[in-house]
Amino acid sequence: MTSILLAIMGWDPKGWEQRFRALAPQHDIRVWPDAVGDPADIRYACVWKPPAGLLAGFPNLKAILSLGAGADDLLADPELPDVPVVRIVDPDLTMRMTEYVVLHVLMYHRRQRLYDAQQRERRWLEHSQPVASEVVVGIMGLGVLGTSAAQMLQRIGFKVVGWSRTPKALPGVEAFHGARGLEPFLRQSEILVCLLPATPATRGIVNLDLLHKLGRHGALQGAYLINAGRGALQVDADILAALEEGSLAGAVLDVFPTEPLPIESPLWGHPKVTITPHNAAQAVPQTLAMSVLQQIDRIERGHPPENTIDRAIGY
Amino acid sequence: MTSILLAIMGWDPKGWEQRFRALAPQHDIRVWPDAVGDPADIRYACVWKPPAGLLAGFPNLKAILSLGAGADDLLADPELPDVPVVRIVDPDLTMRMTEYVVLHVLMYHRRQRLYDAQQRERRWLEHSQPVASEVVVGIMGLGVLGTSAAQMLQRIGFKVVGWSRTPKALPGVEAFHGARGLEPFLRQSEILVCLLPATPATRGIVNLDLLHKLGRHGALQGAYLINAGRGALQVDADILAALEEGSLAGAVLDVFPTEPLPIESPLWGHPKVTITPHNAAQAVPQTLAMSVLQQIDRIERGHPPENTIDRAIGY
Repeated sequence: MTSILLAIMGWDPKGWEQRFRALAPQHDIRVWPDAVGDPADIRYACVWKPPAGLLAGFPNLKAILSLGAGADDLLADPELPDVPVVRIVDPDLTMRMTEYVVLHVLMYHRRQRLYDAQQRERRWLEHSQPVASEVVVGIMGLGVLGTSAAQMLQRIGFKVVGWSRTPKALPGVEAFHGARGLEPFLRQSEILVCLLPATPATRGIVNLDLLHKLGRHGALQGAYLINAGRGALQVDADILAALEEGSLAGAVLDVFPTEPLPIESPLWGHPKVTITPHNAAQAVPQTLAMSVLQQIDRIERGHPPENTIDRAIGY
Repeated sequence: MTSILLAIMGWDPKGWEQRFRALAPQHDIRVWPDAVGDPADIRYACVWKPPAGLLAGFPNLKAILSLGAGADDLLADPELPDVPVVRIVDPDLTMRMTEYVVLHVLMYHRRQRLYDAQQRERRWLEHSQPVASEVVVGIMGLGVLGTSAAQMLQRIGFKVVGWSRTPKALPGVEAFHGARGLEPFLRQSEILVCLLPATPATRGIVNLDLLHKLGRHGALQGAYLINAGRGALQVDADILAALEEGSLAGAVLDVFPTEPLPIESPLWGHPKVTITPHNAAQAVPQTLAMSVLQQIDRIERGHPPENTIDRAIGY
């Protein structure tokens, strides 16, 4: 019997606890903060936004498993124990993200906000509509999520370009990489989809300078931003400035440097901004608990865990 | 030199005329109503919503080519000459329709209207979200447009069922057909996408009785209607009644029995209705003119035209 800790902040841990107990009755499931027991028992910590310093209190940890796709909050803990940190990679999570990206690319491409406004005025007026093949979507971040979104957008007919830290090859996608590849990538991208991890190198990357470089080919109404990656990537004030000056036609933001987005943020009320509450790829215990428990089983059988974080690069 | 007539109502014929002249300088392009010349010259009539009786005035027509996907308006002309009537089938038109269907299925699936409302209230609140595989989309009409939409929705992860007049086989799609197949098809469909042609048999098919049969499996907020087929399929008053009584959670309507939708229609202001101005699959001369001219070339070379209307069944 292996002791597994669930330490979850910001989500209701109930569903996770039930699912872990149902799927792994052979294990001893402990739930922070009320039912931790002897910290020395804990071998695996399955966590979402645990308070900094918490994990240092478990001397016999073998691995830390994140219950969400991002791990930047975890790595920000200066006392994080020196054990493997495992990210979740799950087809369910990937497809939810793909749904979100496709939805918001199409909402802009098909000018749904304009047709909504016309409906409020009872106006029947058709506007000329480019075909998807005339529109270039740029995906920043070509990991599992970015690759899936890129492939689906291609199937719908969009031209897709990609950018990543290291070289990646994706059929049909012109792929750029590294600092030197960023500007040519941006110059082509009229709809920018940001799915990068938050690392010291990507912090604040979505700033006014970057937004000024986005392509304006004329097929759409201007450059457009979709950030469903991490809040730390974006500079809210720069996005607002780009919207105000007209260099950005609109933005869809699922993530923010501060979450929940503070009620006084001008992003909430901006007519060109769509805000969703960090739900682009909802982590649902029903399917994800199985992925996490499979990783624990791998480690228990002596195999190295998959999808571990490289602390040197931050994801 | 063959004389080709363009007779277009409700759209600006300019783009079509320019494109026809550019692509087919060897032909004699005439434009109704101002530059028809001798009616006896005209061999092909390329039309969109021509007035009833107009085409009877051309005694030497070899074929009538519709510039849009639907032909019900044409067939309603009691004096329609007895020559082949050709529908447009074009990959560009097909993909535009697929974009539209995918956009509106995802908007409902991802509860975008609810998140929009929350944004107006500056509310950060996540709702539980089914995965696409828990949601059944039913496609009525499995022609070129329905098949393309069905396949793309499947790739995104939705469960797709289909219904058509005659038996059709589509990989991965449970396909129903005919009068006896309608009810079992509807019972499964939680999001109903209507892409049927308007024929005497389908007129008014989207009525209260049909809407009552839609599936309510609990994964979504209730049954949902997307009609991007033809306006004659739907009974506006029945859709409103279904929305009012709660048997329908929402509707997206691109087509109406009367177009433009009259300003006094209560559909315009209904909070659960999305209205678009018959632009789900915009017919754009840039690409479609080539499809039409290719059909004319086929006939001129002695081959039978493709995608002809069967007047007995009405599409």
